[in-house]
Order: sequence, then structure tokens, then C-alpha cells
Amino acid sequence: MTERLEQQIAFLNEADKLKSVMRGTLLCDASRSENSAEHSWHLTLYALVLADQAGPDVDITRVIKMLILHDLVEIDAGDNPIFGDHDITDMEAQEQAAADRIFGLLPSDLRDDLRATWEEFEANQTPTAQFAKSLDRFQPPIQNLAAGGGSWIEYNVTEPQFIKKVGTKINTGAPGLWHYARARVSTWFAAHRQS
Amino acid sequence: MTERLEQQIAFLNEADKLKSVMRGTLLCDASRSENSAEHSWHLTLYALVLADQAGPDVDITRVIKMLILHDLVEIDAGDNPIFGDHDITDMEAQEQAAADRIFGLLPSDLRDDLRATWEEFEANQTPTAQFAKSLDRFQPPIQNLAAGGGSWIEYNVTEPQFIKKVGTKINTGAPGLWHYARARVSTWFAAHRQS
Repeated sequence: MTERLEQQIAFLNEADKLKSVMRGTLLCDASRSENSAEHSWHLTLYALVLADQAGPDVDITRVIKMLILHDLVEIDAGDNPIFGDHDITDMEAQEQAAADRIFGLLPSDLRDDLRATWEEFEANQTPTAQFAKSLDRFQPPIQNLAAGGGSWIEYNVTEPQFIKKVGTKINTGAPGLWHYARARVSTWFAAHRQS
Repeated sequence: MTERLEQQIAFLNEADKLKSVMRGTLLCDASRSENSAEHSWHLTLYALVLADQAGPDVDITRVIKMLILHDLVEIDAGDNPIFGDHDITDMEAQEQAAADRIFGLLPSDLRDDLRATWEEFEANQTPTAQFAKSLDRFQPPIQNLAAGGGSWIEYNVTEPQFIKKVGTKINTGAPGLWHYARARVSTWFAAHRQS
């Protein structure tokens, strides 16, 4: 039992490093970049508060579990801003290696359970994963709108890029949230960009 | 529906401020203080990974819900470091006023549900709340041990103070975690303090 607990604590201490992984998104007050740990917390709160936007086949408890875990691989692989330029095949290989190492710190039963939850999120095929992914795509534009543009300015994003890379995934899992975001985002781009 | 969603988003944007509330505890690498949003995320991961330390009457899904919400009142009331000097009656009044304002941003059904969950955590009477509270007390010493002392040094804490203010609450909800922490903490104090 002590060895098991040592493994659990070693994993939790390793996870602490997610607080030092910085994202492209700013806080709502634009004071600094958001880190992936506080982003993960914010998403679990999104899930609690926006559960009424989920379809009937979505398991909100599992959505929250996915969102707690979803960015842990960034401890090794880093955050890849959605409008940044990176090789998806290479990124996925790095994230798989990170998952092997990080979840591998756990006792085997927990390793397998948490890895399977993360893989379901990544595959984005089940209604539960699709809703979790929609929240992960919905929060950054909400922060950007509050921050006066945020990562859209930094990455010089156009409205068509936003719709392709962000909008389609929000719409898959949470069409009501996409309806809400789209109008507000279009207003912002109309005021700030020729797209 | 749109007005409801506007209220939900206003609450989520207000919650973003928890990322700027700083705690007494340092990150494991001692590089900086931890904020209350990333602390809340870390605790939800503690709950997932240490669920086997909970008693049979503990609802882990509700533990996680409590931990997501537990520090939101700090947006108005601030963090009160456990070894700091503050008036508990005054602090509780500030936190109740904060809960009125912050949960009051939500539609009434969500306001009542989240407020009741937070109140159950604060009252610390149910097995579920006691386990959640134990995790909230267990994580800082784990971080302090990793960081080489952390808030114990800053607040000049003695081992009897630690046992009284932290140990008893860990032991109430998670005796196995207290057993784990106590030996390691005693070793640290023996090496660093005359207590």
C-alpha cells in the first residue's frame, strides 16, 4: 500500500508542472497568459455551469474527468496554440510518448483508467468526448472577447480560420454554444479585421 | 435561453479572477506561489488519483464538484493562509458575502445548486465534505515537502501547529493520507525546527 501511495504522490507532484506550461490565451483582464493547469480548472467549471448545453448521451461526470486530465501530456509535449504552425503527426507522436511516461508513473489500474479516459477525449468520437472538446474550444474565444482580442491578435487570425479551426469543433459537441459564440466573434472580426 | 447563457458566461468570466488570487503555498519546484485556480485543478486530480483513500460513504463525483467550487469566494475574500493570523468570524462573514455575490451571478437553479455544494464543503460534516477538506489540507504539505519547506518556512510553522491546524483535518477524512504525511512531515521538522 505504501508503494502504491508513493506512486500516486509521484504522479501528483509531476502533474504540478502543468502550472508552468503557458498557453496562447490571455486571462480575461489581459494581464498575462493563462497556464494549462488553471485553464483545466476553468474548463471543469464550464462543464458544471454549461451542462444544460450537452446532448442527452453526454456523461457530465466523465466530461469533467476528461477535462481534468486533457492537458497533462503538455508537461512533456508543450502547448500547441491552435493557430500556431506545427506538424500534427509529430505533435501526436510527442503526446503519445508523454502519455506513456506521465500516466506510466501511476499504479497500473489507475494508469489504464486515466489513459483510456484521455484517449477517448483525444479520439473525439463519443458524445461525451465531443462535448468536452467543445468546451476546450469554446473557452478561449470567450477569454479573447473579454480580453479585447487576445490570441486572435497575437496570431493574426482571420474569421475563416477561426471558423475552420475552432467553430466546427464547438458546433459538433455544443451547437448552442457555437450559436452564442459565432455572433459575438463575427462582431469582433468585423470591427478589427478584413477577413 | 440567451439571457440564461449570458448569466452563465458572466459567472464564468468572473471566475477567471481566481487565477489571480495567490496562496501561501509554493509550486513543487519553489519557483513561485501557487494561485487558487491551479490549486483547485490540482485538487480535482488528487481526488481522481486518491479516491481509494476515501471511506465507503464518500461520493467522489461530488468531492470533485466541491473542489472545483471551493475557493471561488476568494475572488472577493482573498486567500487566508492557514498559518496566517486572521479573525475567523470576520473571514466567514466575508466569504458568505462573496458567495452571495458570486453565485448570485448565475441563473437561480444553478446558483442554488452550486451554493449548496459549497456550503456542504464549508460545513465539513458529511463524509464527502470531510474527504474533500482532507485533500485541501493534504496537498499543501505535499507541495511543501517537494519545495523544501515552502509556507512552513515563510510562516515559521512548528510541528504542533501543523498537527493542530492541518493534521486533524486530514485525519478526519483520510486517515491513510495523514499516516503518510505525518511521518514525512515529522522528518522535515526534526531536521529544520526545534518545535
